[in-house]
Amino acid sequence: MSKTLEQFEQYLDKMKKYEHINTLLYWDMRTCAPKLGQAGHIDALTYFSTESFAMSTSDELYGMLETLKTPEEFAQLSDTMKFIVTRMQRDMEKDRRIPKDRYKVMVREQAESGNAWEDAKNASDFSIFAPHLEKMIALTKEMAGYTDPGKEVYDVLLDKYEEGMDSATIDRLFGELKEALIPLVKKILAAKQPDDTKFHAYFDPDDQRKVQDLLLSYIGFSKDAGAVGETEHPFTLNFSSKDVRVTNHYYEHDPISAMFSAIHEGGHAIFEQNVNPEYDNTAAGSCRYMGVHESQSRFYENILGRNKNFWIPVYEKVQELMPQMKDISLDEFYREINHVRNSLIRTEADEVTYCFHIILRYEMEKAIFRDNVPVEKLPELWNQKMKEYLDITPANDAEGILQDMHWSDGSFGYFPSYLLGSIYDGMYLEELEKELGPVDEILKEGRIKEITKWLNEKIHWYGSTRTPKEVIANVCGKEVSAEPLVRYFEKKYASVYDLK
Amino acid sequence: MSKTLEQFEQYLDKMKKYEHINTLLYWDMRTCAPKLGQAGHIDALTYFSTESFAMSTSDELYGMLETLKTPEEFAQLSDTMKFIVTRMQRDMEKDRRIPKDRYKVMVREQAESGNAWEDAKNASDFSIFAPHLEKMIALTKEMAGYTDPGKEVYDVLLDKYEEGMDSATIDRLFGELKEALIPLVKKILAAKQPDDTKFHAYFDPDDQRKVQDLLLSYIGFSKDAGAVGETEHPFTLNFSSKDVRVTNHYYEHDPISAMFSAIHEGGHAIFEQNVNPEYDNTAAGSCRYMGVHESQSRFYENILGRNKNFWIPVYEKVQELMPQMKDISLDEFYREINHVRNSLIRTEADEVTYCFHIILRYEMEKAIFRDNVPVEKLPELWNQKMKEYLDITPANDAEGILQDMHWSDGSFGYFPSYLLGSIYDGMYLEELEKELGPVDEILKEGRIKEITKWLNEKIHWYGSTRTPKEVIANVCGKEVSAEPLVRYFEKKYASVYDLK
Repeated sequence: MSKTLEQFEQYLDKMKKYEHINTLLYWDMRTCAPKLGQAGHIDALTYFSTESFAMSTSDELYGMLETLKTPEEFAQLSDTMKFIVTRMQRDMEKDRRIPKDRYKVMVREQAESGNAWEDAKNASDFSIFAPHLEKMIALTKEMAGYTDPGKEVYDVLLDKYEEGMDSATIDRLFGELKEALIPLVKKILAAKQPDDTKFHAYFDPDDQRKVQDLLLSYIGFSKDAGAVGETEHPFTLNFSSKDVRVTNHYYEHDPISAMFSAIHEGGHAIFEQNVNPEYDNTAAGSCRYMGVHESQSRFYENILGRNKNFWIPVYEKVQELMPQMKDISLDEFYREINHVRNSLIRTEADEVTYCFHIILRYEMEKAIFRDNVPVEKLPELWNQKMKEYLDITPANDAEGILQDMHWSDGSFGYFPSYLLGSIYDGMYLEELEKELGPVDEILKEGRIKEITKWLNEKIHWYGSTRTPKEVIANVCGKEVSAEPLVRYFEKKYASVYDLK
Repeated sequence: MSKTLEQFEQYLDKMKKYEHINTLLYWDMRTCAPKLGQAGHIDALTYFSTESFAMSTSDELYGMLETLKTPEEFAQLSDTMKFIVTRMQRDMEKDRRIPKDRYKVMVREQAESGNAWEDAKNASDFSIFAPHLEKMIALTKEMAGYTDPGKEVYDVLLDKYEEGMDSATIDRLFGELKEALIPLVKKILAAKQPDDTKFHAYFDPDDQRKVQDLLLSYIGFSKDAGAVGETEHPFTLNFSSKDVRVTNHYYEHDPISAMFSAIHEGGHAIFEQNVNPEYDNTAAGSCRYMGVHESQSRFYENILGRNKNFWIPVYEKVQELMPQMKDISLDEFYREINHVRNSLIRTEADEVTYCFHIILRYEMEKAIFRDNVPVEKLPELWNQKMKEYLDITPANDAEGILQDMHWSDGSFGYFPSYLLGSIYDGMYLEELEKELGPVDEILKEGRIKEITKWLNEKIHWYGSTRTPKEVIANVCGKEVSAEPLVRYFEKKYASVYDLK
């Protein structure tokens, strides 16, 4: 091993430890730390994130990467190390342009803004969050100005979460969807709707936790390499492929939400648990493409979890763990988990109208970053768009613009990933059935782990080493298109709603 | 502010952040991190603890402390800062003699040994733990050799957990207890014993958690400044007075264990939540005297929690939260929580025979550090002493020598603190009744918070600024003695067991 490579590996090792504890601080703030303990965690997070950032942009690291990129050094590197060195150098070019003190301001504001969002949502008062949102928008623009000067800010943000993606492509894909879904949803809403009364009884959160554990294990989540926490908004994070954590939220009068959050976050987690462990804690591990990531969570949640056959092998066990479910037949349950309706909350939406929730957010973000719509106008704009796409108006900000945490930590440009994920899912589904046969059969026979294995081998194993375009090309051999997803929706809902 | 003081405060601030994340890593390892994620945490903990230790023993800090101790600088310091500077300098003199690389070995071995102990306990196989125990003993001796060369190792360990305490004093106090308790326990065991059948029914752990939350809140634990986790062995830790965490363990066929663990750990936590917040994250905060600390947890657990009057205001609520308790009258419950019997597990023992569990461990530790009894002989010695003091023999190591985690992280010399705590409690009780009137009345009327306030003002507020001897002198105005505890036992159990 060359001396530089040895130094570089030691340096990576130290960086890894800082990232490790930043992840842990974030996890604990959300899942465990008490109200009065938040400030201590924010102090520590600000300090260690700043140190971590300084390390990832230091002259020392830059010098090592330059050396490792020289032909004679580079030729000696493993393929993984070649990827890591190339990727880190590219990221560094951008990140080094962010002044360290401004980065520190960003980290502190992210944490404070996250807490303000929680308070604002609890109080259903946008004005508590507005000044923080304003700061996050300004800071996001400022950061994009350093990393990608002269580029359209919103395209920089889209590319950050889904490399190679831009608003022209998204306009096309979302356009294809809108064109097909607006008439489909009209037909569905005109059809007979199921009665959902039974789903509003009281479901003990302790029982819901047991069902969640069953579902996680059923789809292939490893408890030896994972943990579960409780938060306002479910999420997944990981330290490495050996420690991947999901959270959930339990509603006393809705058993379905926590089940599908479990399957969704479980999908993210299965991805991370199955990345090549050689990539752990490097730029090659932990998939950084959010569209690709969401394609996995949403494949489990929707393509598999909202298929009736998914439930055939486990439904009796669910009824045992949550006795009120004994009053609900599998048919009734299946109708309800595919109950299409115009609703207020994205995370609770059915898979069809969900698309409109994302299109709305995508347009909001374009309004913020392209049209510079001022923060105080955003709730009104939100409500207008809700009326336009979903024909309802939120009664308050908590069920309107405050419902998602994403903007609170500056994750602008993330929302489109969810729908890109579903678009990819339509494509994967067609390919998977070509290779493994009908999904209905596989699920009905309780062979879901075969699907997990297929996804492991086709997608998960590669972590961040394949860009979204490469993933799609490798799995499906074609360009991305919304048509397979549209076909899936049209076929499925013609059957669910008995449409002509 | 002098320039050195300013630098010193910045330095303390950085140290605080390292300690903060070391505490968090430990918390997460015990309460949340999955099996395969432990190694990543151990790596991080080893790194940051070593850095933290290096910071607390650096020449830079030493120089600052020297300067701050000069008369002109020292005179300008606040009383708190005077305490901190003096205390840190004294600790540093000792710690600086530990080689940094040996400290690192110690930290890593502590973490690995903790995991080995857990595996050994689960497998009930001492041989899994033995090599780690051997290393921990050797490392403990080695460390004592650096910090206190030439001193009796076991006295160094006792002084570490309860400053000013030595084996001569403990021999006297435990001797007083033995003399009185051996005949008392004989009399009790000869009396009529209550029927405990009802307490072995199934008690849902989810209900037990609800009862735990009720009890914590009832005694004064603040949820805004605290959190609860689940672990094999309950413990309390704190980041500052604003973030104090307890853990618990729930046995399906024993509702009492988790209740009393909650009250015990709640007592530790109430202590930490009520230390002068000015002392947060300094050598003045977070009480470092374990006898004094245990005196608080055990005051809540035994003096208050095992008093019938404690339950009068809450027993109905407990029965609501845990329906099986409706079959159990308060009288039956009271008899059971004071059911004296020879038993195997320290943490499950009644308050009387508990004393023998500690005396046994104290004698074991003397055997290890004074008589150098080899590790492989320890299970046999343990079982001999169990027979001698408690007239029973463990069927296996899990319910014998492996039951406690203390030795796994090298906390030799800690066990006597529990009994010292009870000895102090006897003294506090007499003083408290002098000042506030009969505890029975206060508890019966649901005025337990008045007792908490008394303890807050007399003990908690001072954190680490008063040594155990000073605490006793300030609260009781006399030397430590086991006589009040003996009087408490004799009076209480004459009544519980209707002894002549």
